[in-house]
Amino acid sequence: MSFSRVAVIGLGLLGGSVGLAIAESLPDCATTGYDADPDVRRRAAERGLVGTVCATAAEAVAGADLIVFCVPVGAMAAAAVEIADALPADAIVSDVGSSKAAVGEALRGALPGATVIPAHPVAGTERSGPDAGFAHLFRHRWCILTPPADADPEAVAKLSEFWRALGANVEIMDAAHHDLVLAVTSHIPHLIAYTIVGTASDLEEVTRGEVIKYSAGGFRDFTRIAASDPVMWRDVFLTNRDAVLEMLGRFTEDLTALQRAIRRGDGEALFDLFARTREIRRSIVEQGQDDARPDFGRSDH
Amino acid sequence: MSFSRVAVIGLGLLGGSVGLAIAESLPDCATTGYDADPDVRRRAAERGLVGTVCATAAEAVAGADLIVFCVPVGAMAAAAVEIADALPADAIVSDVGSSKAAVGEALRGALPGATVIPAHPVAGTERSGPDAGFAHLFRHRWCILTPPADADPEAVAKLSEFWRALGANVEIMDAAHHDLVLAVTSHIPHLIAYTIVGTASDLEEVTRGEVIKYSAGGFRDFTRIAASDPVMWRDVFLTNRDAVLEMLGRFTEDLTALQRAIRRGDGEALFDLFARTREIRRSIVEQGQDDARPDFGRSDH
Repeated sequence: MSFSRVAVIGLGLLGGSVGLAIAESLPDCATTGYDADPDVRRRAAERGLVGTVCATAAEAVAGADLIVFCVPVGAMAAAAVEIADALPADAIVSDVGSSKAAVGEALRGALPGATVIPAHPVAGTERSGPDAGFAHLFRHRWCILTPPADADPEAVAKLSEFWRALGANVEIMDAAHHDLVLAVTSHIPHLIAYTIVGTASDLEEVTRGEVIKYSAGGFRDFTRIAASDPVMWRDVFLTNRDAVLEMLGRFTEDLTALQRAIRRGDGEALFDLFARTREIRRSIVEQGQDDARPDFGRSDH
Repeated sequence: MSFSRVAVIGLGLLGGSVGLAIAESLPDCATTGYDADPDVRRRAAERGLVGTVCATAAEAVAGADLIVFCVPVGAMAAAAVEIADALPADAIVSDVGSSKAAVGEALRGALPGATVIPAHPVAGTERSGPDAGFAHLFRHRWCILTPPADADPEAVAKLSEFWRALGANVEIMDAAHHDLVLAVTSHIPHLIAYTIVGTASDLEEVTRGEVIKYSAGGFRDFTRIAASDPVMWRDVFLTNRDAVLEMLGRFTEDLTALQRAIRRGDGEALFDLFARTREIRRSIVEQGQDDARPDFGRSDH
């Protein structure tokens, strides 16, 4: 059932983690890899992120039965074009991008006739680059597959099995619905975090030194997310524009309502919201999607 | 120089941590405590949060040379009134509230003639109640004192020494400036977190189950903050209204600019912001105000 040779295109946090996870969980599966940046290729070889680091993308995909694109979503089309002539006819083409409708179109457009099954493992850290990956990034995380309506069920089953082998739970979803769900659970949170960190950096009345010193009041949590890879996130917002703008509209409406409650001194409205948001945290912890310890366990207590 | 008997009024996360920190760092200092909730008093006695849990606030402050109010900021005035007749003449009155101008006024109003030196240790977790406190909550955190202009310098020095003994760094600041700084580094981050968790809970197109499953994309970070004590946070927004609304205005302006950039497909504007927000995270980690490990170290890697 499983793949015998996986090519990983892009060797940053996600690509490196895919390579290391395969080595740990699917030791019989050979891995090749490529990155457009020669420094990343060198470092990937030193860390052993994949079995063989290749000098070209075409070389990396030769003989592969699964190709996983792990490049920013805006770079998917160009990366796919590079391997078009070398792609084995029976290979499955997939990716790890955070927006799925646009990526599916890009890959299918660049690789006509190929078996394209887009995927998104909902996992990551604020780090990026070839030193950031680790083998169990995907454990207990969800990986969402967004196969087109006419996808080969066997290919979908095979890719599902692959992600389960790396430790993930697998869900199948329509690409448009994925993009709406992730706009809420990932894209808007990142946009808000980037915004507040930018706002705090630009104030005249409050110095940057003060923002840093007193960041333990809550702000520091946002700086972690706002330290994420800028190219990756630029591309996410450009490729998932409609869903992001839709969800941003809902958020802004709710924020305006709270602003009014503060202005009017409406403590009841504030309390009502603040009391019910606890419940969702409890469910997230119960379902193993976050650390149960206070403060994410980061304080040593 | 140090205090010989400290009374802690309110035995939740902060009050409990003050009591435990004194026991650990100032073992010669006696502690008494009181909480309006009898269940909290019982649990505080079981955990030994303070040396003596008293049945009334007046009893707790008898013979104390420092009183620390650790109740929600909206409850400060009423709590102070309860001890007015029992307050020793030479005692210093302080607190741990998150907004300082309103609390200073409330304490001075309720305790005319008393030596009131408000304070705010910028430390906490999302937990609350008598089981949440721990002795080293204040280590390497900043504690901001906001003495009135005519405060006795010796009282300020003595309170500074107390907080340093509990492991905190101490800063002196004007109450109004404190309220502006904390609006940015704490109050607005909490307001935004509560809002997005509320928004995500109320969607019809995306189920609550989906929000929980895919929360590792960034959303789960916000749910931690949004699990904080609702009474405490309601009171913060009601008592620091002007600074919060001012800073919320700046945030909203910046968010609107980003929204426009997304709508127009202006990748350069997005990249420029996303690239510069990394720097402030680096400084926060360098200055020991957050965990240097990826993902706050909460993943086991």
